[in-house]
Amino acid sequence: MKYCAGIDIGGTTIKLGIIDEEGALISKWEIPTRKGENGLLFMKDIADELRKYVDEKEGMEMEDLLGAGMGIPGPVLPDGYVEVCVNLGVKDIYPAKLLSDLMGGIPVQVANDANVAALGEMWQGAGKGHDSICMVTLGTGVGGGIVNEGRIISGMHGAGAEIGHMRVDDEEKEMCNCGGHGCLEQYASATGIVRVAKRMLAHDTSESQMREVEELTAKDVCDLAKEGDPLALKSLSYSMDRLAFILSHIALATDPQVFVIGGGVSKAGTFLTDMIAEKLKSYQSIVDIERYDVTLATLGNNAGIYGAAKLVMPD
Amino acid sequence: MKYCAGIDIGGTTIKLGIIDEEGALISKWEIPTRKGENGLLFMKDIADELRKYVDEKEGMEMEDLLGAGMGIPGPVLPDGYVEVCVNLGVKDIYPAKLLSDLMGGIPVQVANDANVAALGEMWQGAGKGHDSICMVTLGTGVGGGIVNEGRIISGMHGAGAEIGHMRVDDEEKEMCNCGGHGCLEQYASATGIVRVAKRMLAHDTSESQMREVEELTAKDVCDLAKEGDPLALKSLSYSMDRLAFILSHIALATDPQVFVIGGGVSKAGTFLTDMIAEKLKSYQSIVDIERYDVTLATLGNNAGIYGAAKLVMPD
Repeated sequence: MKYCAGIDIGGTTIKLGIIDEEGALISKWEIPTRKGENGLLFMKDIADELRKYVDEKEGMEMEDLLGAGMGIPGPVLPDGYVEVCVNLGVKDIYPAKLLSDLMGGIPVQVANDANVAALGEMWQGAGKGHDSICMVTLGTGVGGGIVNEGRIISGMHGAGAEIGHMRVDDEEKEMCNCGGHGCLEQYASATGIVRVAKRMLAHDTSESQMREVEELTAKDVCDLAKEGDPLALKSLSYSMDRLAFILSHIALATDPQVFVIGGGVSKAGTFLTDMIAEKLKSYQSIVDIERYDVTLATLGNNAGIYGAAKLVMPD
Repeated sequence: MKYCAGIDIGGTTIKLGIIDEEGALISKWEIPTRKGENGLLFMKDIADELRKYVDEKEGMEMEDLLGAGMGIPGPVLPDGYVEVCVNLGVKDIYPAKLLSDLMGGIPVQVANDANVAALGEMWQGAGKGHDSICMVTLGTGVGGGIVNEGRIISGMHGAGAEIGHMRVDDEEKEMCNCGGHGCLEQYASATGIVRVAKRMLAHDTSESQMREVEELTAKDVCDLAKEGDPLALKSLSYSMDRLAFILSHIALATDPQVFVIGGGVSKAGTFLTDMIAEKLKSYQSIVDIERYDVTLATLGNNAGIYGAAKLVMPD
């Protein structure tokens, strides 16, 4: 049996996984992200961890490790160049070349972490059986990944599928973290859902259980919407309408087979994806938008490991 | 020298071109589109024309023709399947297989005509030197083509880059030809530009030279905007703002190197592309949108021939 390593590099923790040729995750573990020396420290840690794994794994030799893929939390150019990644404290590096050199020249690939998660969901998660998907991660922010015919669309400046910062409201006065205003993230992320709900509570005097909650969270809004609280439902509907608006544009840009919804907010389940699918239908046009499935991500935090491994996994 | 044929199949006319390995269009001609027998008639005509060309061309043998590419005016699936193409009166066919069989098995590829035009502009036109572009054709309708890392994004339902039918105004009451409402085409196509101008004339009582024109055209609106007619300028600005809004979404979806503007409306020249670029900047977000060039298409009606040939041209 041959294997690939999938490595999901975050600002605090690095997740490592070993995946076999059949797509099974046979081992996974985490190490802290040791910053410094422009990424060389944590790259050395990764190389050490992988070597140690192979050494200790019975019957496994270095030549059984076909390659390693990495996801990193920042823009990656199609040739693997990373101009800057603030969360990792690196700039002007080719991370894949760095790790490959440390690992005796084995094949290494790198891509943006949200893009890599989409590839993982396509391969072994909610998009299994498809080769073109769009994944949206609704967390603190809104992340995205578009895979077309099996390949990540990284974008020529590493901005592929940066859907959280697509404009959805020209009238928005509050500023997004990115410095723009009216970005999808301001409405459909966990923080965005709360922001929309609070704004609605301030402008709508009708009753709502949301008023009773001390520190309103996206989960509260989703839970109360499920329970039929009219204002929570109205608020969440608006947030998901803004998301569906963007998905309708992606449907007519890269035309994937399926939209996969992940991230903390997606714990609201099919209640949420059904709502998004219904809103998406309302943007019906020349294209029969009803044919797009909207479905829940299934790999959770492992999506990045799967996707990273897939970057180097032979077909 | 080796050659590829590029064939642009329209509802009335078929344009044929022969392009050499260096990308030079060495011959082009047209034949009428003979409909019937589910596409077999015009396919036979194409095969006959190509054979005749090779026969008559001094020093050229059939083995010098490396392949033929086709653009057709309808959705094409990634595997070349065409469910239906109303303009050509065909359904449920694999056009590439059909032509290849008629040509003794030479490689044949097919894609949507707007997508193929984008590939042509990338290869030998305004996108030369790049491998990821988005082309927008502003004609009677609004067509689009997205090329990412040298490959057309056809979309899993053949709806790749159908940007003319992306929603840009939820409040629009008039219906688009597609049955939707608020589609980009209703604002930024030649007919859309006139529609917006007429609506503005009806709701704004200020003076405008546009009122003197008997049958207002998009060219009139562009010309008068250039001359500084305030209402024409306001109207065209609005149309191009809606286009730029969509381009800002594509910038954050497939993140191309350059936006190429073609079609009849693009005859307004850099006045138009400068306006689009300026509007695009106003949708600034996390991504430094200023880095996107907006430039005029250069191949005109030949873009389809170039792009079709490129489908089968070896790298």
